[in-house]
Amino acid sequence: LSKARYVIGLDLGGTNIRCGAVSRRGEILVLRRAPALAMSAAQIVTENIAQQVRIVESIARRRGGGKASAVGVAVPGPINLKTGVVLATPHIPAWRNYPLRRRLETLLQRPIKIENDANAWALGELWLGAARGFKHVVLLTLGTGVGGGVIVDGNIVHGRAGMAGELGHVTVDPEGPPCDCGSRGCLEAFASASGLRQMVLSQPGLAHARADRAFFDRKGDFSVRKLTVAAKMGNQRALAVLKLAGKHLGIAIASLSNIFDPELFVVGGGVTGALPLMKTAMEAEVRLRSIVVEAGIAPVVRASLGDNAGVIGAARAAM
Amino acid sequence: LSKARYVIGLDLGGTNIRCGAVSRRGEILVLRRAPALAMSAAQIVTENIAQQVRIVESIARRRGGGKASAVGVAVPGPINLKTGVVLATPHIPAWRNYPLRRRLETLLQRPIKIENDANAWALGELWLGAARGFKHVVLLTLGTGVGGGVIVDGNIVHGRAGMAGELGHVTVDPEGPPCDCGSRGCLEAFASASGLRQMVLSQPGLAHARADRAFFDRKGDFSVRKLTVAAKMGNQRALAVLKLAGKHLGIAIASLSNIFDPELFVVGGGVTGALPLMKTAMEAEVRLRSIVVEAGIAPVVRASLGDNAGVIGAARAAM
Repeated sequence: LSKARYVIGLDLGGTNIRCGAVSRRGEILVLRRAPALAMSAAQIVTENIAQQVRIVESIARRRGGGKASAVGVAVPGPINLKTGVVLATPHIPAWRNYPLRRRLETLLQRPIKIENDANAWALGELWLGAARGFKHVVLLTLGTGVGGGVIVDGNIVHGRAGMAGELGHVTVDPEGPPCDCGSRGCLEAFASASGLRQMVLSQPGLAHARADRAFFDRKGDFSVRKLTVAAKMGNQRALAVLKLAGKHLGIAIASLSNIFDPELFVVGGGVTGALPLMKTAMEAEVRLRSIVVEAGIAPVVRASLGDNAGVIGAARAAM
Repeated sequence: LSKARYVIGLDLGGTNIRCGAVSRRGEILVLRRAPALAMSAAQIVTENIAQQVRIVESIARRRGGGKASAVGVAVPGPINLKTGVVLATPHIPAWRNYPLRRRLETLLQRPIKIENDANAWALGELWLGAARGFKHVVLLTLGTGVGGGVIVDGNIVHGRAGMAGELGHVTVDPEGPPCDCGSRGCLEAFASASGLRQMVLSQPGLAHARADRAFFDRKGDFSVRKLTVAAKMGNQRALAVLKLAGKHLGIAIASLSNIFDPELFVVGGGVTGALPLMKTAMEAEVRLRSIVVEAGIAPVVRASLGDNAGVIGAARAAM
């Protein structure tokens, strides 16, 4: 660990913080998890973030490193990239138009870079993961919700205020199910864990499906993993729901293909475990709806960095 | 006209060519229209293009200009930007995987830039039209079909091979009417002249609507202008069709807003005459489906360069 040659990447989730010291070449030198204290007062959440940064830095120093030259923070929600203000995130209710960058700069006395978590994830996959070496890539995280990041000419598309890439809220069926965002028929309403859960619950004969052991865990929470296992065992309801998710993912991928003409699609997040069961329906829509291109339809591959992509991407954003 | 300080921009349509000598500041010094000879053999179409360039250049020279330093050609169909090959265009049937750039370079002995016509139009509007001074813009041409161009950080999005920006083929209703591209429910199937025509013909009670004077001209061709006039006079069928077009344009604009977070939308083409009648339905969808952003929903404005945008943009692409 050579002196001072690292930055800190911090991935803030609704439950946990992952905080790492990342070298210029992308090696994770120190990695630490801690509770996010997401339900606390605004300043408590921020002070906790600063504290995690200090802890990771002190570990890195003990191992011979210098001071972290910058800190990147991935935030689960829309941010204004220019001002460093977090607009609102359901995960941290106390942050509303919260000047996170300024507060952290005061606490940590060094440059802070704020980035949306899906964009940070995309940056990580672009730098060292499945999108490495590509210049035109559309990345989708299929988790509790659906997030996205778009790479054009090697750079992430931020738009006017840093809110571009909300690919989960592309309309794929105007008459589709309601989405948490207030709209209906968004990609997120089909291809996320919460979308799958809603589709399971709205299936005929499943009004009391919370108790259905095939799709819900012991605590009564919906489980994508259980749904996937059920589908693999031939459960028709599970197969039907995953087919619907695959179909609408395919509609979105075709539209995004016609919009961006990308070299590659990268798909990550917890729902990707079910991707093989969604694939046939997905590919049928992609074939139907993509403008025929000389180079053929861009391949859809799985993300490769796993849970560390956010830390790596947040660090990359700060470099 | 100072020596040599201009390039030639040529906008190739299915019927006509517009060819202009354009100064570095964007003034059109010479402008000429000629038939496109679009149904001729591949090489005849190309030689005609070269001939028009030579004529415009000779006029510019007579007025004291030098040799055009470069030529930009806007082509109505998908092209491979790297190779300069026209993949296929319904307007010029003889061109299939046609190496237009190479052929024109042989004929004209100078650098040739090929660009998709919608992208050239977008470049023109960005340089000197409604999008001037903006860095993040989504542009839509609502003509016979729907074309598009996207500006990110001041540059046009080309993607892998130059085929990005096919915004007419974003799916806005997976169960919607068939589109000429082979898919269904594309934006083009609703918000283009051909989409409006199809919707008029498929309205109940309009099976023999070709003869309906309210929507078709004397030759029996569908007329967006007549449809618009009929709607303004309170024709309920006309109003219903334009409402449907507006609704689906709004769905596309909301998705594009969530994808790009643009500062501005620019809408051009023959259908924009009907835009005031589509606006209420359009705006309702934009409000419903846009992720709420701090800076508000980006305004939708009309293109300002008219029919010369393609010539100006083709010239700009060649600079």
